[in-house]
Amino acid sequence: MSGTAQIGVTGLAVMGRNLARNFARNGFTVAVHNRTTAKTDALVKEFGDEGAFVAAHTPQEFVAALERPRRLVVMVKAGEPTDAVIQEFAPLLDEGDVVVDGGNAHFEDTRRREKELRERGIHFVGAGISGGEEGALNGPSIMPGGSAESYESLGPMLEKISAKAKDGAPCVTHVGPDGAGHFVKMTHNGIEYADMQLIGEAYQLLRDVAGYSATQIAEIFRTWNTGRLDSYLIEITAEVLSQVDAATGKPFVDVVLDQAEQKGTGRWTVQIALDLGVPVSGIAEAVFARSVSGHAALREASRHLVGPTARKLGADEAAAFADQVEQALYASKIVSYTQGFHEIAAGSEKYDWNIDLGKVAAIWRGGCIIRAAFLDRITSAYEARAQLPSLLADKSFAEEIAAAQDDWRAVAATAITQGVPTPAFTSTLAYYDSLRAERLPAALTQGQRDYFGAHTYRRVDRDGVFHTLWGGDKTEVES
Amino acid sequence: MSGTAQIGVTGLAVMGRNLARNFARNGFTVAVHNRTTAKTDALVKEFGDEGAFVAAHTPQEFVAALERPRRLVVMVKAGEPTDAVIQEFAPLLDEGDVVVDGGNAHFEDTRRREKELRERGIHFVGAGISGGEEGALNGPSIMPGGSAESYESLGPMLEKISAKAKDGAPCVTHVGPDGAGHFVKMTHNGIEYADMQLIGEAYQLLRDVAGYSATQIAEIFRTWNTGRLDSYLIEITAEVLSQVDAATGKPFVDVVLDQAEQKGTGRWTVQIALDLGVPVSGIAEAVFARSVSGHAALREASRHLVGPTARKLGADEAAAFADQVEQALYASKIVSYTQGFHEIAAGSEKYDWNIDLGKVAAIWRGGCIIRAAFLDRITSAYEARAQLPSLLADKSFAEEIAAAQDDWRAVAATAITQGVPTPAFTSTLAYYDSLRAERLPAALTQGQRDYFGAHTYRRVDRDGVFHTLWGGDKTEVES
Repeated sequence: MSGTAQIGVTGLAVMGRNLARNFARNGFTVAVHNRTTAKTDALVKEFGDEGAFVAAHTPQEFVAALERPRRLVVMVKAGEPTDAVIQEFAPLLDEGDVVVDGGNAHFEDTRRREKELRERGIHFVGAGISGGEEGALNGPSIMPGGSAESYESLGPMLEKISAKAKDGAPCVTHVGPDGAGHFVKMTHNGIEYADMQLIGEAYQLLRDVAGYSATQIAEIFRTWNTGRLDSYLIEITAEVLSQVDAATGKPFVDVVLDQAEQKGTGRWTVQIALDLGVPVSGIAEAVFARSVSGHAALREASRHLVGPTARKLGADEAAAFADQVEQALYASKIVSYTQGFHEIAAGSEKYDWNIDLGKVAAIWRGGCIIRAAFLDRITSAYEARAQLPSLLADKSFAEEIAAAQDDWRAVAATAITQGVPTPAFTSTLAYYDSLRAERLPAALTQGQRDYFGAHTYRRVDRDGVFHTLWGGDKTEVES
Repeated sequence: MSGTAQIGVTGLAVMGRNLARNFARNGFTVAVHNRTTAKTDALVKEFGDEGAFVAAHTPQEFVAALERPRRLVVMVKAGEPTDAVIQEFAPLLDEGDVVVDGGNAHFEDTRRREKELRERGIHFVGAGISGGEEGALNGPSIMPGGSAESYESLGPMLEKISAKAKDGAPCVTHVGPDGAGHFVKMTHNGIEYADMQLIGEAYQLLRDVAGYSATQIAEIFRTWNTGRLDSYLIEITAEVLSQVDAATGKPFVDVVLDQAEQKGTGRWTVQIALDLGVPVSGIAEAVFARSVSGHAALREASRHLVGPTARKLGADEAAAFADQVEQALYASKIVSYTQGFHEIAAGSEKYDWNIDLGKVAAIWRGGCIIRAAFLDRITSAYEARAQLPSLLADKSFAEEIAAAQDDWRAVAATAITQGVPTPAFTSTLAYYDSLRAERLPAALTQGQRDYFGAHTYRRVDRDGVFHTLWGGDKTEVES
């Protein structure tokens, strides 16, 4: 016997609850379940008038409430809790049922779970969901990975509950098989770290070099938000900087402890990039910058270190400097997206996911934290050339960065000279200059490695692998 | 029945062979074994006159040749081959025997193996060995981790075969329990990546900005090697830059393909640092720089990117610039060692290894790739204050960096302005400026996180965890 609910959500913390409400508001009958049954009842009591809910108090009731093949979304903590729920539900399911993990799982866990459930005939979908609580309720960006068949069943529902881009397109697509969705969500978060760090560096420069107040900087971000930097993060930066602390009358940003916290996905993005051999230096600097900020004792022990104090500019100079900072921020942003998309391309190739990079940019246009006008540009770049080796190889990005680079350099040099830390501005610029360099010092590195470890080297003028007898007569031998 | 060999070496590729010879040359009777017996016989035939070897053709013969409790050194590839050899030998061993893994194992593998063998009463020693082939033969730096009891048995032998520092001290110490030795060796290699990248950036600047030839730059490095930068890597840099390619008559460094390769340890250093929450940004940039250099297609697609061409300086300016580069290199080197030692301290704390950081610096003074006069300074810093929160908190390093920082900034700003990539120079400088910053933009980051994800924040003026109702009336609530 089959139930009537088209979808089920188990795990009713704020993300799960809001996702369930989102389904219900869109006309779906939603079975809801939570280990603590009080949460289930509270949800139905409080939001029951938003749509059709079926409260299930046991896993058995939950499964029975679903129409077949079943679709159930697991919204519990990543890691062991997710495995525990899967272990609990799998024996109750039948071939062809679809289990969705909507948490922030590591894509390697998703690959493992997908394989295990596939062997039992169950479709497992690792779906990255971005947009926080508010997105879960009103429309997130959804990045599902799994079988094509599972997307046939789920896709139309996800398209209904997802955010819509300005052109009306739903912010969801079938990203690829098994771990593809969670991999893309991880990289999304890594890019988000870089975006936030770049904004932070721009803010610091406007404060310490240009000498602007938080209110003035908020106004600058508001202006930037009407141009090519138009994005959710720029918008909320202006909001945060406008906020006045009620208790002290000071700018809110000045009373917040400057120790950034983090969960795992930024770190994972860098660790996986290292495994894939993809340079994501800008994202790494963003992750490390949070980590530096949190080392309170280390910072305390380092306050005495000698360095310049930033010079405050006059009004005219400050305005010109702010324009330069916008150029720097934009150029660095292009590089950090270049690095992030390189990582997705490398992951896709390694795991045979066949990810459409343009589609990824397209589904980030709404719902998620990094939503931005800019993403349309990335989609266009990949639509114009699916095999684009790098975003920087796109003509229009290259032109923009060419136009921005004088200011980008000026801002970075100013930061360095005046002692303002801008690790992500300078790292992305170094990446840019590394890529365009005719000759990198890697030739010297190879020579050193051959000297101390006989690691061999290749030559620019002929094929083969060579070693110099450094300890002997210093002749070259082919190896 | 017990054999007469005080030590055994199994796995007779170049590292194993040289280590066995080193033991024999120091008066120990060495049992030697290799899966392919021809290698065993060849070793004894070729080097038998160097000392006392016992050729063993089977694992049984090998084990029988050793005096008890046995000491055997495994010199095979890290990963599965190491596990296979351990599986093969463990059943032949007795309680109290000592198995040494002298390969570049991941310290987590070493922890697992140590635990497994400990349960069988066998001591497992993960020993990092640095110095390449030549070091293995004539004296490496050895970083053994394992039980104190195993070091009592092994230590005197390792002290004999190890490199000696200038003051005669053997370059080996009992680093700590289980994975401590391989962890320290991993970090050694990460620091080596940073050292090499910093040297590469200095070389690139001397070439592209100062306009020096390879021969002239070799001379500059030779001069630096007589000062505070005195080290093996600076010395061999001069050697490599002096080398002329016989086939073309060009400087050797100009005919080597500028695509750097890497094995796993640099990458691991960064990945583990991310897990430990330790910012090792300079090491990360070094790893990424190798990775960028190897992406030939990406570089080819990026050659057209717009940027300045470095200006060649006149002779007087060039000489002054070279002095500034030395200051920059030294300051960046202090920071990258600061980061590496921070990682060792964090690992030691997490795994309860109780590592003596001053001793670590001391045993790197000879034999290993990063051996340098500089390391004495690090030892002194930790001897003066064992709980030093950071190398930068040491008064004399802080003073040196204070003296160097104007030039450091000038060099970095020049590189940025002239389009020469110096990711490690600028990253280490940003780290320095981040640590000394009164207020980091992390406060803005926390505000943004609270805005989009209700992640909460702390305040500078009172304890507690807070959230602002951003979507509501924007008041602050304590959570």
